[in-house]
Amino acid sequence: MRSVTLDQVDDLALGATLLGTGGGGDPYVARLMLKQAIETYGPVELVDPADLPPDGLVVTVAIVGAPTVLLEKIPAGTEFLGAVNALAKYLGKEPVAIMPIEVGGLNTLLPLAVAAEMGLPVVDADGMRRAFPQIEMTVFTLAGIKAAPMAVADEKGNLCVFETNTNQLGESLVRGAVMSLGLASAFASYSMTAAEVAEHAIGGSLTYCMQLGGLLAAVQRGEAGAYERFLDQAQGSVVFSGTIIDVDRRTTDGFSKGTVTIEARDGSSRTMQVEIQNEFLVAFEDGEPVVTVPDLICILDAETATPITTEILGYGQRVNVVAMPCAPEWHRDGMLDVVGPKAFGFDLEYTRLGE
Amino acid sequence: MRSVTLDQVDDLALGATLLGTGGGGDPYVARLMLKQAIETYGPVELVDPADLPPDGLVVTVAIVGAPTVLLEKIPAGTEFLGAVNALAKYLGKEPVAIMPIEVGGLNTLLPLAVAAEMGLPVVDADGMRRAFPQIEMTVFTLAGIKAAPMAVADEKGNLCVFETNTNQLGESLVRGAVMSLGLASAFASYSMTAAEVAEHAIGGSLTYCMQLGGLLAAVQRGEAGAYERFLDQAQGSVVFSGTIIDVDRRTTDGFSKGTVTIEARDGSSRTMQVEIQNEFLVAFEDGEPVVTVPDLICILDAETATPITTEILGYGQRVNVVAMPCAPEWHRDGMLDVVGPKAFGFDLEYTRLGE
Repeated sequence: MRSVTLDQVDDLALGATLLGTGGGGDPYVARLMLKQAIETYGPVELVDPADLPPDGLVVTVAIVGAPTVLLEKIPAGTEFLGAVNALAKYLGKEPVAIMPIEVGGLNTLLPLAVAAEMGLPVVDADGMRRAFPQIEMTVFTLAGIKAAPMAVADEKGNLCVFETNTNQLGESLVRGAVMSLGLASAFASYSMTAAEVAEHAIGGSLTYCMQLGGLLAAVQRGEAGAYERFLDQAQGSVVFSGTIIDVDRRTTDGFSKGTVTIEARDGSSRTMQVEIQNEFLVAFEDGEPVVTVPDLICILDAETATPITTEILGYGQRVNVVAMPCAPEWHRDGMLDVVGPKAFGFDLEYTRLGE
Repeated sequence: MRSVTLDQVDDLALGATLLGTGGGGDPYVARLMLKQAIETYGPVELVDPADLPPDGLVVTVAIVGAPTVLLEKIPAGTEFLGAVNALAKYLGKEPVAIMPIEVGGLNTLLPLAVAAEMGLPVVDADGMRRAFPQIEMTVFTLAGIKAAPMAVADEKGNLCVFETNTNQLGESLVRGAVMSLGLASAFASYSMTAAEVAEHAIGGSLTYCMQLGGLLAAVQRGEAGAYERFLDQAQGSVVFSGTIIDVDRRTTDGFSKGTVTIEARDGSSRTMQVEIQNEFLVAFEDGEPVVTVPDLICILDAETATPITTEILGYGQRVNVVAMPCAPEWHRDGMLDVVGPKAFGFDLEYTRLGE
């Protein structure tokens, strides 16, 4: 039996911040929730979908909203059980396990806290292995799996259940509900059998996240060769090193959008511009796209190797931009329609990292 | 046993257009639906709430959306049963009767068509006895009765169920969902026991609507003294006669908003301005409010006595503006907070008609 213990939470949170690629909500609050849950209920059991009864019900739980609001609104906790229980009631079936919808950002840790409280294991898998701003942006959507029925709940007992024909309409309905409920709500969705999870989810993503977090922590401790081991594990590379010279940021339609501009530190006049929609989505070097969504763009503090989220980007920060390939499970038919550059309104082609 | 037969549908529709006070959606499509339903299933039984088992479940059904869209989008029919059935499933109880949420506009007739198809009677009562643009604007809200649980459905099988602490939040969530679903959807809500309906609803409103429609039809046939009998039954009065000289109309946030300006025909320079938010809400004569919501403002064609809806208001129309008092059940504590002028953003006091 694998489990997540108290002393692994910090690695998990660091990895989750990295895989949040600037967004996904700062895991700080979720880390506190998870630590308290583990202290109260004990370590959280991690399982592979194959360890569960094949027809057992697995549901995802997450917080949905604009990251800038998530920083200011501390979840009460009751809303997450409210969302899961509403979904279970609607389905007429109790879940045997909880799964993160995204391993990236605070929605990595939050399902573990909910699972601990419910006495359920967490499936070591997810639908993104990074953060994305919209709920239909999962490998499940590629596989034709419906996000619906979906439940949205707040801490005051307000509740929405949605049944939709498409995950895109689901996103629209959930986003509208979240705006009415105060811009950050609990969300349960993507109910699947364990057999479906085994077939379609990105397996091992929580373990992967903890490994990357642990390696990044070693970098932060100054261990020799740690940066190389981290990049090796992530299959990543530093594509730009420089100083932030401009940050343009705004909250629109419940999303945090903007652009960050970085100037090279090597004396050349090279600049990198990274476009933001909750997450870092596209990196341009001197106007040419060099990293494109769904591949990952992570901005790390040049001194401390701390992943920098969009909320704390600031003028004058010295940073390294690290590019990492998306999970191989993304490379299926329809990927670009769901999470390619055009899905975010960028008029450019996806260029697979390393090609 | 009272029932609504095929030859009563036109009176009901005419009365409903009148009580729609310019809005509530043109009953034309609902009239066709109801006629077809009566031809298929027979006359619709009307009951008083006292005729039902006191603990029997009564639910309201309606179409929610912007009237300008309702004119263009013909309901498929399946969505109304979808909404009622979703609500019944959520409550774990089957309804014994259907009730209109508003007797005014197309939502007067539509519940009868749904009830005919479901083989259920219709309660001769409602929550407004006129049309209002928002779902929390009912005498039920005054009585502390929750609109939730609420179900919203479309003709494609998409479905939303909402549980809210306040009817105002319910309105916000439903409005958002309707925008995502295409601006006009089926809506089931205000589940009550028959005993609650007997205590809190506006009783006899369908009969009242049919009577007014019948009297107005007599006016249209040119019967002597018919206009007086109509005004007498409605406790109404003609507060202005003139020609429309300006119509300012726009669709904003799912509502049809605007202003209509009428110039007197008596040679004086008097003008009346009527403010619209789906319905006619406030009438000003030379800048002074003379009729204020929740009292009714109806604009009738001066020649044909046909009630004119906001969608067909036009320059040069010769009209009479008729004021009618709201149902006496509205005059309870909290009325002005829910449907007074300030509830619609007008910075003026309610002046009860005749005072």
